Amino acid sequence: MSDLNHRVLDFLPAWAWLKAYTPVKFKSDVLASLIVIAMLVPQGMAYAMLAGLPPIMGLYASILPMIIYAFIGGSSTLSIGPVAIISMMTFATLNPLFEVGSPVYIEAATLLALMVGLISLLLGLLRFGFLIQLISHPVIKSFIIASALLIALGQFKFLVNVPLKANNIAEFIISLWQYLRFSHINSLLFGILAIIFLVYAPKILASQAIQSRLGSTAFLSKALPLILVVISIASVMYFNLQDAGIKTVGEIPSGFPPLSFPHWNWELVKTLIPGASMIAMISFVESLSIAQATALQQRSNLNSNQELIALGLANLSAGVSSAFPVTGSLSRTVVNADAGAKTPMAGILSSLLIILVSLYFTGFFRDLPLVILAATIIVSIWKLVDFKPFLDTWRYSKADGIAMWVTFFGVVCIDISTGLIIGIVSTFILMLWRISRPHIAVIGLVEGTQHFRNIQRHHVYTAPHILSMRIDENLTFLNANTLKGFLINEVSQNEKLEHVIINCSSVSSIDLSALEMLEDLNAELSKLNIRLHFSEIKGPVMDKLQHSKLLKHLSGQAFLTHYQAIQELDASHTEYQI
Amino acid sequence: MSDLNHRVLDFLPAWAWLKAYTPVKFKSDVLASLIVIAMLVPQGMAYAMLAGLPPIMGLYASILPMIIYAFIGGSSTLSIGPVAIISMMTFATLNPLFEVGSPVYIEAATLLALMVGLISLLLGLLRFGFLIQLISHPVIKSFIIASALLIALGQFKFLVNVPLKANNIAEFIISLWQYLRFSHINSLLFGILAIIFLVYAPKILASQAIQSRLGSTAFLSKALPLILVVISIASVMYFNLQDAGIKTVGEIPSGFPPLSFPHWNWELVKTLIPGASMIAMISFVESLSIAQATALQQRSNLNSNQELIALGLANLSAGVSSAFPVTGSLSRTVVNADAGAKTPMAGILSSLLIILVSLYFTGFFRDLPLVILAATIIVSIWKLVDFKPFLDTWRYSKADGIAMWVTFFGVVCIDISTGLIIGIVSTFILMLWRISRPHIAVIGLVEGTQHFRNIQRHHVYTAPHILSMRIDENLTFLNANTLKGFLINEVSQNEKLEHVIINCSSVSSIDLSALEMLEDLNAELSKLNIRLHFSEIKGPVMDKLQHSKLLKHLSGQAFLTHYQAIQELDASHTEYQI
Repeated sequence: MSDLNHRVLDFLPAWAWLKAYTPVKFKSDVLASLIVIAMLVPQGMAYAMLAGLPPIMGLYASILPMIIYAFIGGSSTLSIGPVAIISMMTFATLNPLFEVGSPVYIEAATLLALMVGLISLLLGLLRFGFLIQLISHPVIKSFIIASALLIALGQFKFLVNVPLKANNIAEFIISLWQYLRFSHINSLLFGILAIIFLVYAPKILASQAIQSRLGSTAFLSKALPLILVVISIASVMYFNLQDAGIKTVGEIPSGFPPLSFPHWNWELVKTLIPGASMIAMISFVESLSIAQATALQQRSNLNSNQELIALGLANLSAGVSSAFPVTGSLSRTVVNADAGAKTPMAGILSSLLIILVSLYFTGFFRDLPLVILAATIIVSIWKLVDFKPFLDTWRYSKADGIAMWVTFFGVVCIDISTGLIIGIVSTFILMLWRISRPHIAVIGLVEGTQHFRNIQRHHVYTAPHILSMRIDENLTFLNANTLKGFLINEVSQNEKLEHVIINCSSVSSIDLSALEMLEDLNAELSKLNIRLHFSEIKGPVMDKLQHSKLLKHLSGQAFLTHYQAIQELDASHTEYQI
Repeated sequence: MSDLNHRVLDFLPAWAWLKAYTPVKFKSDVLASLIVIAMLVPQGMAYAMLAGLPPIMGLYASILPMIIYAFIGGSSTLSIGPVAIISMMTFATLNPLFEVGSPVYIEAATLLALMVGLISLLLGLLRFGFLIQLISHPVIKSFIIASALLIALGQFKFLVNVPLKANNIAEFIISLWQYLRFSHINSLLFGILAIIFLVYAPKILASQAIQSRLGSTAFLSKALPLILVVISIASVMYFNLQDAGIKTVGEIPSGFPPLSFPHWNWELVKTLIPGASMIAMISFVESLSIAQATALQQRSNLNSNQELIALGLANLSAGVSSAFPVTGSLSRTVVNADAGAKTPMAGILSSLLIILVSLYFTGFFRDLPLVILAATIIVSIWKLVDFKPFLDTWRYSKADGIAMWVTFFGVVCIDISTGLIIGIVSTFILMLWRISRPHIAVIGLVEGTQHFRNIQRHHVYTAPHILSMRIDENLTFLNANTLKGFLINEVSQNEKLEHVIINCSSVSSIDLSALEMLEDLNAELSKLNIRLHFSEIKGPVMDKLQHSKLLKHLSGQAFLTHYQAIQELDASHTEYQI
């Protein structure tokens, strides 16, 4: 029975929570779903607009993907749906190919979701979840900050109602120069009012005075964007703001999301592959890091390949239900967990509510001003634009700092995808650079102990006929030559040298290039009557070396500890005492 | 005075041997230069032909570059000049652009040498000598084997005297299919005789019977190619073999190498940059590894940047003296050292001898059959085609084995440069893959000692409320998530867990991604009332962590040794005894 359980679980992780579901949990889940929905409706529509798509598609993107993930995904609180960065990437991928918002553009967006789904699914099935790790934190952070900046700039066109471009900063400045004098003052005023509301209302709600009167205002504060939406629709209707030039969402078709397989055009698919791969990568990075944080809190295990499969199926379902690429949303997941969601049922319930909205309430959003959605995006995204991480990172590590700036300028000055690639490649180069310049120290004995330390940092004992050294890096082709050069130098400076001992306590692997370098070194040193020794070789490294010629032909010995080596090699010298 | 000495040495390393030069050394150097010249003349002409150039350019390439290196280079025995692999790369670079052997082709070859020189010089001045390490031994070995195979196949066209192509194996097979029936039997017979001579004559000379009669035959054996050249010229003249369709070198202009700066055509320069960079890289790899071996024997220091500068100037001089790219030759360097060369004067003397040859003896080579040069190349290069390294490498390390095969098939099936690039990239990918899957072990105490070992390999003591683990790799973005996933898993399986101790004895660096992962982990574990500890953090790592939030907010402690950690955290538990 338990065996059957395990098999069902492998196939359908949802079985775990479904069979233990209770009415108490249901009550918590309903409450959480209501709170999430208040965020999801305006966010979904805004992010669809950000992707250059009709707002209704933001609602569609919050239905099937969320239900699919609830059954297959490993996190109970992760909220899957439209997310700003992914929408921006969708826009960046499709914008150069088709006229934004045209039917081909919309169809390409669903195809893109399908492809993101297929790529993620394939990587998950092939257990390539580790690929996520190719992107370092500094790169992803910088990517998000730079993208957020571009997203905020991109929304500016709705505020001033002129066709500004924002694929990179140069484009933005040039189009600003061209079009700013045509900006529409009424939209701008309306937008600024909305931004002020979204920025200051939460602060007022959080103030002592209000809290003591109303009690907890947490839910109210989450619902502020929805409240703004309602107010602005009401004012458009009441004051006939359309006549004042305020652009609105317009007629939205009601009903279930149309289910259809997007047209599979091979030429287009080939063109979309780079964009789809980047979106798959970033959506996985975002989603997994959120899911991991929540998984740890619930002491539940999380398999990154299973997550990739779940995310893949979620995107596939987005592709066949007239939606666009989706991933886990940090803000909604946090709200969902805080609101007390107990199981993925909370997600399913919010999907059902979104279906209700698309069936019966779309007419309500007809008069929603675009500038309000833009204000929502700007306020939520602007929080991400923060330059402190650049300073902190630079302070901790120059290499990580460089990677951050490279990514930032790549994204802001070229475009979002190229910047990301440049950033990823730069981290690899910096890592290879670091590996190629390992820390190598000549070490000596701390008198009265069995410990060895860097002779440049500590006052230690050394014997003139023995060179003790330690390398603080795995030995690979990237640093084999550095080590050899270091030794050639040391040998040339010491006429009395008889023994070289390499301390391998920091060496966890030796690749073939390094092994051959050591073999050569051994042969060349023995011609000079210098014996080569090793100390503190780790178990797994020793296992591999057993098969090699190095130990067989070694002029010296492999000692268990460095102290043993010194004891044995230095015994005949009278000046050596401990 | 000594200070002045040092300054002169920095600028002109030759000062060191020039000021200590003696007549005794001169005698040794003269002898060595005579032996080297016997190899150099046929090799130089053959390798020029391999590069698709007139044989005389092989002599030119052995004059100025050798003299320049003698004054600036760091190795006293390195023989600089034409080398098979570099000639092949020159051919592969220029062959797609111009008709082989045409005036533009020849001018492009000198331009290529100039560019190789500039690139090397620039990299040396910018202290980029470490770049050499980007190519691992398995890749370079496989590259040489595969190139040797292509070179040998490429010479086949001179044996059969039909226009076979050999940029890759497919091309060779197709052209063989087309042209083989047109092959010229006389050339083939002549070539086969030459090959038999070059293969068996050294064996006969090395045999006991001959050695006892003639004494040492070492010099004679080195001069065999030259003897073959003389014999074949004599037979062409005596038997009028040209009438039998044997192609010969033809008229060679005599005189000093024409000194002129190649025409600097920007379009062509841009086209040649990738090829020139690869040639610069490979020539540096070849030259430095030979120089390092000899430097160690002479206990002399070797600066890789200085070598890069010397090689750069040598190639520059090749570019302005009607030659083509050069590097250090392994075979000639070994012969030079064995023959007793004491200083770079041996190299200078062989250059002077080559000048004599180009001034007065070029007419002699008019009747040299091309097929003889081809036979010289085939025999000397075929020794390199050896598949045992593939097997040995595979046995030691699967990753290195894969890189070798990838390089081999890249070179043989696509072309020499693409193959090299594919090989280099594959080693990076395999290295990143290895870093991303570090060895992580749960460890326990070996009873009665202070040592900790992998619980899966050894019988050790563990406490149920403590998780002790060790990671055998530096912590980077590539493996931060692996470590976190491992811990999430362990935490989910152990309800009693109160302490996690990460042993950092193998960790020499922690990048920002890993640091942040540890910070998150610390925060998330402490919400579960699990404390995070570290043990055995190395000095340099600790230095960096002092500036971070990790240690400040750490729920646990940083212990000096893992044993101390266990002693302190496990003290209250009665079941724990040592």
